[in-house]
Amino acid sequence: MEGQSKKAMTIAKLQQVKHNSGKNYNQIAAETGLTNVYVAQLLKRQAQLKPETAPKLKAALPELSDEMLQEMMHPPLRSYDPNLIQEPTVYRLNEAVMHFGESIKEIINEEFGDGIMSAIDFYCSVDKVKGMDGKDRVVVTFDGKYLPYSEQKSEHMVSRLRSEGS
Amino acid sequence: MEGQSKKAMTIAKLQQVKHNSGKNYNQIAAETGLTNVYVAQLLKRQAQLKPETAPKLKAALPELSDEMLQEMMHPPLRSYDPNLIQEPTVYRLNEAVMHFGESIKEIINEEFGDGIMSAIDFYCSVDKVKGMDGKDRVVVTFDGKYLPYSEQKSEHMVSRLRSEGS
Amino acid sequence: MEGQSKKAMTIAKLQQVKHNSGKNYNQIAAETGLTNVYVAQLLKRQAQLKPETAPKLKAALPELSDEMLQEMMHPPLRSYDPNLIQEPTVYRLNEAVMHFGESIKEIINEEFGDGIMSAIDFYCSVDKVKGMDGKDRVVVTFDGKYLPYSEQKSEHMVSRLRSEGS
Amino acid sequence: MEGQSKKAMTIAKLQQVKHNSGKNYNQIAAETGLTNVYVAQLLKRQAQLKPETAPKLKAALPELSDEMLQEMMHPPLRSYDPNLIQEPTVYRLNEAVMHFGESIKEIINEEFGDGIMSAIDFYCSVDKVKGMDGKDRVVVTFDGKYLPYSEQKSEHMVSRLRSEGS
Amino acid sequence: MEGQSKKAMTIAKLQQVKHNSGKNYNQIAAETGLTNVYVAQLLKRQAQLKPETAPKLKAALPELSDEMLQEMMHPPLRSYDPNLIQEPTVYRLNEAVMHFGESIKEIINEEFGDGIMSAIDFYCSVDKVKGMDGKDRVVVTFDGKYLPYSEQKSEHMVSRLRSEGS
Amino acid sequence: MEGQSKKAMTIAKLQQVKHNSGKNYNQIAAETGLTNVYVAQLLKRQAQLKPETAPKLKAALPELSDEMLQEMMHPPLRSYDPNLIQEPTVYRLNEAVMHFGESIKEIINEEFGDGIMSAIDFYCSVDKVKGMDGKDRVVVTFDGKYLPYSEQKSEHMVSRLRSEGS
Amino acid sequence: MEGQSKKAMTIAKLQQVKHNSGKNYNQIAAETGLTNVYVAQLLKRQAQLKPETAPKLKAALPELSDEMLQEMMHPPLRSYDPNLIQEPTVYRLNEAVMHFGESIKEIINEEFGDGIMSAIDFYCSVDKVKGMDGKDRVVVTFDGKYLPYSEQKSEHMVSRLRSEGS
Amino acid sequence: MEGQSKKAMTIAKLQQVKHNSGKNYNQIAAETGLTNVYVAQLLKRQAQLKPETAPKLKAALPELSDEMLQEMMHPPLRSYDPNLIQEPTVYRLNEAVMHFGESIKEIINEEFGDGIMSAIDFYCSVDKVKGMDGKDRVVVTFDGKYLPYSEQKSEHMVSRLRSEGS
Amino acid sequence: MEGQSKKAMTIAKLQQVKHNSGKNYNQIAAETGLTNVYVAQLLKRQAQLKPETAPKLKAALPELSDEMLQEMMHPPLRSYDPNLIQEPTVYRLNEAVMHFGESIKEIINEEFGDGIMSAIDFYCSVDKVKGMDGKDRVVVTFDGKYLPYSEQKSEHMVSRLRSEGS
Amino acid sequence: MEGQSKKAMTIAKLQQVKHNSGKNYNQIAAETGLTNVYVAQLLKRQAQLKPETAPKLKAALPELSDEMLQEMMHPPLRSYDPNLIQEPTVYRLNEAVMHFGESIKEIINEEFGDGIMSAIDFYCSVDKVKGMDGKDRVVVTFDGKYLPYSEQKSEHMVSRLRSEGS
Repeated sequence: MEGQSKKAMTIAKLQQVKHNSGKNYNQIAAETGLTNVYVAQLLKRQAQLKPETAPKLKAALPELSDEMLQEMMHPPLRSYDPNLIQEPTVYRLNEAVMHFGESIKEIINEEFGDGIMSAIDFYCSVDKVKGMDGKDRVVVTFDGKYLPYSEQKSEHMVSRLRSEGS
Repeated sequence: MEGQSKKAMTIAKLQQVKHNSGKNYNQIAAETGLTNVYVAQLLKRQAQLKPETAPKLKAALPELSDEMLQEMMHPPLRSYDPNLIQEPTVYRLNEAVMHFGESIKEIINEEFGDGIMSAIDFYCSVDKVKGMDGKDRVVVTFDGKYLPYSEQKSEHMVSRLRSEGS
Repeated sequence: MEGQSKKAMTIAKLQQVKHNSGKNYNQIAAETGLTNVYVAQLLKRQAQLKPETAPKLKAALPELSDEMLQEMMHPPLRSYDPNLIQEPTVYRLNEAVMHFGESIKEIINEEFGDGIMSAIDFYCSVDKVKGMDGKDRVVVTFDGKYLPYSEQKSEHMVSRLRSEGS
Repeated sequence: MEGQSKKAMTIAKLQQVKHNSGKNYNQIAAETGLTNVYVAQLLKRQAQLKPETAPKLKAALPELSDEMLQEMMHPPLRSYDPNLIQEPTVYRLNEAVMHFGESIKEIINEEFGDGIMSAIDFYCSVDKVKGMDGKDRVVVTFDGKYLPYSEQKSEHMVSRLRSEGS
Repeated sequence: MEGQSKKAMTIAKLQQVKHNSGKNYNQIAAETGLTNVYVAQLLKRQAQLKPETAPKLKAALPELSDEMLQEMMHPPLRSYDPNLIQEPTVYRLNEAVMHFGESIKEIINEEFGDGIMSAIDFYCSVDKVKGMDGKDRVVVTFDGKYLPYSEQKSEHMVSRLRSEGS
Repeated sequence: MEGQSKKAMTIAKLQQVKHNSGKNYNQIAAETGLTNVYVAQLLKRQAQLKPETAPKLKAALPELSDEMLQEMMHPPLRSYDPNLIQEPTVYRLNEAVMHFGESIKEIINEEFGDGIMSAIDFYCSVDKVKGMDGKDRVVVTFDGKYLPYSEQKSEHMVSRLRSEGS
Repeated sequence: MEGQSKKAMTIAKLQQVKHNSGKNYNQIAAETGLTNVYVAQLLKRQAQLKPETAPKLKAALPELSDEMLQEMMHPPLRSYDPNLIQEPTVYRLNEAVMHFGESIKEIINEEFGDGIMSAIDFYCSVDKVKGMDGKDRVVVTFDGKYLPYSEQKSEHMVSRLRSEGS
Repeated sequence: MEGQSKKAMTIAKLQQVKHNSGKNYNQIAAETGLTNVYVAQLLKRQAQLKPETAPKLKAALPELSDEMLQEMMHPPLRSYDPNLIQEPTVYRLNEAVMHFGESIKEIINEEFGDGIMSAIDFYCSVDKVKGMDGKDRVVVTFDGKYLPYSEQKSEHMVSRLRSEGS
Repeated sequence: MEGQSKKAMTIAKLQQVKHNSGKNYNQIAAETGLTNVYVAQLLKRQAQLKPETAPKLKAALPELSDEMLQEMMHPPLRSYDPNLIQEPTVYRLNEAVMHFGESIKEIINEEFGDGIMSAIDFYCSVDKVKGMDGKDRVVVTFDGKYLPYSEQKSEHMVSRLRSEGS
Repeated sequence: MEGQSKKAMTIAKLQQVKHNSGKNYNQIAAETGLTNVYVAQLLKRQAQLKPETAPKLKAALPELSDEMLQEMMHPPLRSYDPNLIQEPTVYRLNEAVMHFGESIKEIINEEFGDGIMSAIDFYCSVDKVKGMDGKDRVVVTFDGKYLPYSEQKSEHMVSRLRSEGS
């Protein structure tokens, strides 16, 4: 992971550009047509900037240099500091995932079949709603494509080697 | 955690009752007015059955004995097998939480202030939607009350001890 | 994971059936049209038996009872003993993955774009070939669908909540 | 966690300001109306300085620059060095929490119901008292709002997606 | 730790006795003059029953046999299941200890000197109070003797060996 | 591992040379007759450059200095950052290895005998194929020499010490 | 690893047979022509008994049943209890390996080239010698085939898939 | 632990002062009346220098500046590098503690009651003796105050909150 | 470690014999001439009973059967439950070892040379003394032979293989 | 471990001196009469240079300055990077130790008694031999003094404190 300190420097610059713009993630999301979480991921180099989106991001954050935009279009090496689990917001999300994990899996099995929710063909957003008691609530939505486990039929495995003797 | 093997036995019985009923979590959820994930949590002893909900659950799953219902009304000791992280569905949820964690936290800070999403005053559901390409997608919704960090003012801390000399 | 000891008993029975049949994984694979690794996964309850494949498996292993076949058609909770990493064959595969991991990732990025190899729409086989020196070689093939990271556009996120005020 | 080294530098400066002032945490707490632990958290960037408290803190620590105060008003990324558990005072608190944990949980269940003590709407103080034997004793008080687990009723989950077919 | 399964059986019996009595920890605490947490620790074999307290406990829980009381008077091997950290109440206490740990330590140093709060000469209680907003709050109090680090003077070390040549 | 920071610097230079050349791994592989993964390993100092291959690599990447080529001919200390497991591509390969590990081992035993697949006399490549559905698929091939466990006969152990008395 | 408790029972029986024979590992090694460590591995099911060696082992340990011999001829799943590292003899071997590891690696590189010592084509023995001071010394010999890293040439990789377009 | 790199620099200076003095720990211990281990702890900032001892230490190590002495009088944040366990001397002490731990605990229980040996009111020394065979032996003495577990009586807990309704 | 459950059963029997005798470790130590810790280790199968000591132990604990004595004369597989570190007495000993470890090592180097304290040729005892304040103190003594690191001269290594060409 | 970065610098210098000399470890070993592994340990500061060996090493590596030789004569703090276990040569040695560990231990018990192989009075060498098939083999020899566990007799423990009342 030789590029990790370079990545850290890029992120620092991107955060500075955002800070200078005075805009928050939701505003940039609205201007670029992206989810707020995805904008944040772009500015942390946890997602790749697509060529057709680059001009929109440049329009939202004019201080972004062409070099930065170029850098943002490389597929990143996705990573996180393991100590991030200490952060109370992150911990509580993790707590929910681990304590509810088996239930979520079984409902997916019942409703879709033997498969999973993709974390790659995946959308995430954070929203603010009012609860029944009128108090603010945070809504984190995870929306991923359903991927059924493939049945591994030999004839469907185009890469299959002809075994010895064949 | 002396009650853990007792808990395992209770869960086995509850799962048998559900299996015998031929109903899935969504059906029971519809009949009881609960989210599908919450129904699954109840049948895994990861949530407490409320007295007013007991009759509805009994109606949905008539094989539930009064003893089981009684047991389900005790606050559970929430836990999970650490190896659950190996399960591909659970891992991908965890991957999303860890890779998107800082972004989610920062958006909460921007939109709500310095606080977190509660995992206690919290709802979770699993839904099935069609994506833009007509393919099935899994939607996991985490909806928790926003909890602002309290500023710790001495006069607001009713439990505060009078310090020496006071 | 309340079903894990039940799973262990099922696996013991399945392995006994295979042993009694006198057939190896390759033979069962040839008779059922599945990859050899997938057959082994089925007999370890690490994969779901599909209804249309059940008769073929029954033909290959006639001692399989209907109850066992029924059980094999439930989506399994996939898991492994963490100590399996001690096993020399497994360790060497893991060593290759970890030491070659960044290289594999970067070639995928160069040849396909920003995405990954799915482990769900996935095939695996073990083959035997003769090397240039006439000695036996083991070939393990991992063949997974390429999954590009989705760009998270708000308009494409059908599950998106309308935010407050909208 | 790109901001962690910046955070370390801020903390060093804040500690220097405190040191130069010659005041201890209790004195600053008395002057600002905050708990002593909260003052320490502020000067370690583990809590957010509220705008209305900033002038009081400035009054107590006049050497604090406006830039520092500005920085202190951002929500911090809460974290700690995992090796802190080695520190004898911290270990003993952790020992008490882990050895008494189940008992504390069960008493909360008996006295309040199925819920927890919040660590967010939370106060903490350290006090000095004389024991029955006239010797000094340390009193650490943890005072958190009781949060009952929500029963997850579909109709109360305002964020709930209408499921397919609805 | 050859006595751990014996300990588990003892705890199961003690919990049954408490359950049969219909009393909660606070009631038993009131009848025995002990803190509520300490009563719970006694009934989990995490504390030693003192001979002079045995009759009071017997009076509060008459179903306790002499054999059980005898067993409770042995010094226990204190322990806990490491997975207990998953339990949300226990995690939040641990979160507070780790995130506030350095602050607590420094205030102890300022107010008492170089020393720690003992976890042995130690009291713990759980209380219920009303917050400023009239809502219930949990108060966990840790009250331990201050122990100053000894300066290790040779003449004060009565166990000191005479070194070679002396 | 005193040479690790030197190694990091060498890798940064090698990656720069590749970047300047405008060639990808597959192109360099075609020009040098090596697998694409092996080329990537060479440019990450995870493999030793052989003297007879050095001119071919120099021809493919003329910017490589003699000093760099010299450095690349030293046996490297093979290593990786343990956090690499977080990277989604690497994780999925690891997931496949761990979940399929026992099956792969047993098929090797059935087809070859009691032995393993070498990770030293080993080839790895990444290929792109079209699946049955016309979609791109990633094929990772692991091809290692079969190594049978030696039966440890004393007479075959040439290093054997004559034992006492012999 | 469903066969692990079966493995434990087999080992218990094998150790009983050895105990009843009154022979130690060295005696059995002498009678079978195997190294002493290998005999111990056979009787712990950490190595496969070869058909031609079975009669010799039967001769040395006549109490071995045909069923046991049959079982011993299956390739074992090699494993160990991770707590074995606590055992002082095992720890000291591990200490030597870790503290001397880099030195051993570099000498192999200097004397053989870029490769490793195989742990599969491998012999191990324990011997007793007298040191210069006449005191007993333990000699553990590790003797493994040198395995050079293969240069991964495409033309030598017989399993190589023809890439798209070829 | 913002002060850790400052601590490292202080230690380097203190070790230099000791080195320049040409004295070993035992000599400084003799001149200051402290145990040898305590002197070493002082020069590693693992113990606080007491004001009345400062002049003696200054006399023993005249090169110590007033600034250093001042620094040494602050309560340190006690810590260690977790890799220290690799060091053979430290490992063997740890091995003894873990393998003999239960025995030591039970003897303390038999001889003193339900309590522990304090690590705070604690002395440690390293001595050299001749064994029965005339060979040198290392004697490490741990001498700590016996701390009995307190029985947690409500009336003795001066910090106890009056519970609701009282 | 196939003998671990057998070991647990043996220990349970030995502890019962001790309990029935009504003697504590110190009394048995006095009657057998062993250290108190060593007696406890014998009754936990963490040390080997020597033939000449067996009659003395039998005299002290007449209920010991010949079979038990026989079992106690086998070299044990030394081990401990890793959770033992939770036990407060054991933790504090470990805390002292880790926090004082470097100091102890350096004093051994100064007083003895480059070597360690053996944990094998080793004595341990627990004693009760009165401190300067008249309070009870626990003294744990670790007394191990000094082992100097050997300089590894080829001519002194009697096991050395003649290298190729010699 | 304040000296670790200083140690790293010393090692870099020593490796440079060796590199400049053009000699390998075996040559230096032959010139100094040390084992090849020990020479490597000296040049990595994992062993102490003895005064009488210093001139021989200086003769073999004349570029060694007196300052370096002086530094090499201090007892080192032995350590290693935990990630070294990833290195394939080191892993395979570790694999052998862990998988063969119990067997080695039991043979030592049978042949020597209840004791261990010292890792301090210890020799290690790496040799090259031809196997029965004429192929190169690596031989790693571990040769350590046998250390019997001492029986802990009170009268033999010269450090023993007289217990209270004596």
